Amino acid sequence: MPVAIDLIGLDGDDTLWHNEAYFRLSEARFAALLAPWTDADADQLAARLLSVERANMDHYGYGAKSFVLSMIETALEVTDHKVSGEVIAELVRLGKQILAQPVELLDGVEATVPRLAAIAPLVLITKGDLLHQEAKVAGSGLGDHFTGVEIVSEKDPATYARVIARYGVAPNRFVMIGNSVRSDVLPVLELGGAAVHVPGEYGWVHEAADLPADMARCRGVSRFTDVPGCLRALRGAGLSAT
Amino acid sequence: MPVAIDLIGLDGDDTLWHNEAYFRLSEARFAALLAPWTDADADQLAARLLSVERANMDHYGYGAKSFVLSMIETALEVTDHKVSGEVIAELVRLGKQILAQPVELLDGVEATVPRLAAIAPLVLITKGDLLHQEAKVAGSGLGDHFTGVEIVSEKDPATYARVIARYGVAPNRFVMIGNSVRSDVLPVLELGGAAVHVPGEYGWVHEAADLPADMARCRGVSRFTDVPGCLRALRGAGLSAT
Repeated sequence: MPVAIDLIGLDGDDTLWHNEAYFRLSEARFAALLAPWTDADADQLAARLLSVERANMDHYGYGAKSFVLSMIETALEVTDHKVSGEVIAELVRLGKQILAQPVELLDGVEATVPRLAAIAPLVLITKGDLLHQEAKVAGSGLGDHFTGVEIVSEKDPATYARVIARYGVAPNRFVMIGNSVRSDVLPVLELGGAAVHVPGEYGWVHEAADLPADMARCRGVSRFTDVPGCLRALRGAGLSAT
Repeated sequence: MPVAIDLIGLDGDDTLWHNEAYFRLSEARFAALLAPWTDADADQLAARLLSVERANMDHYGYGAKSFVLSMIETALEVTDHKVSGEVIAELVRLGKQILAQPVELLDGVEATVPRLAAIAPLVLITKGDLLHQEAKVAGSGLGDHFTGVEIVSEKDPATYARVIARYGVAPNRFVMIGNSVRSDVLPVLELGGAAVHVPGEYGWVHEAADLPADMARCRGVSRFTDVPGCLRALRGAGLSAT
């Protein structure tokens, strides 16, 4: 059955621009900084950090400031509070580097976003620090293509329902595009919407999930440049009918 | 000239519920924790912390996580990185306490908000951590009285214009109620809207500014319970005409 598309949602981090790569680099730096202070190896530190991040998620939410606070907490914990002030200061600096990092668009995004905007109005729906996400939208140069920007604390069905309603669109006429099956695909399908999954450079361990097998309202593409064709396929149920 | 009111904006922190008090308590705790590590007294530490907060504001924005990161940075700086890991861990805990603090409504708010909702639709417009502000709205028990909740990174005229437009209201038919002259009053008056200033328990040093003398579109009240009467006065240009 053809899918009607009156509004297109786009994820930001690792869908339009690089993000996870900076966190991975910071994790490597975190392990190197702690090496003189603990017997734990890089994998063990990454596992410990992940566990602290998860425990803090309900209070801290997503984003770079939360990540730095969890790194500091982990560093204190694994060294029994013996880690030096210089290391803590370096972790604070790492966080500022993530926040100050210029926006780097992913391959094909700059040319493809205007093509998507020609299909239906675009709304950016992204999770994370409010100020940082606003800065990324501004730094992306893509702002003019978006009808709206929605920075949310969680991507669950209730959040999507609220956002979609705000634009006066029925959920079954909405399609979401993003790199996370858990955050960008499943909650939208649950509402009766459609979704296109574009894999990011890195899978994110917080977000791992399988793409549903039913392709009627959900497709996967391998590159962002394939999204417009995929939307046409969803609309025409296989035919190319923009 | 009477002011038409089609939409009422309400600030959250220190207008509807306590906020600044927790930061003040944390500052006192910060000074006590650092006392063994520095010759600086509490006032000097508060001044140094404020200066670090200001320098970080562009990247960190407002909120408890930003505050903790600035406390940690200040602690490292004033002790030449010698402060103990235990003190840093205590600062992290202080931040979590602020984030987990139950919402305490200010005097008269619970009874007055429904009276405001009877005058015009209410929208909460507040600055800070996205997740934390959402949690505060949920914890306030006031959510059902609001047509919308807008968590913003900055309260400038452009932000207010965007929010007001989203509700389909002209700026000169909007009135904002809040404790900060700089954030809740001046930018709204600049757009041609109206404003009611309700002083908070604490002035916030980031936000100090004088209330304009022209009372045509701007009034100050001493208690939150006086706001409905003040709105009637603005509407009727002195007459009580709800």
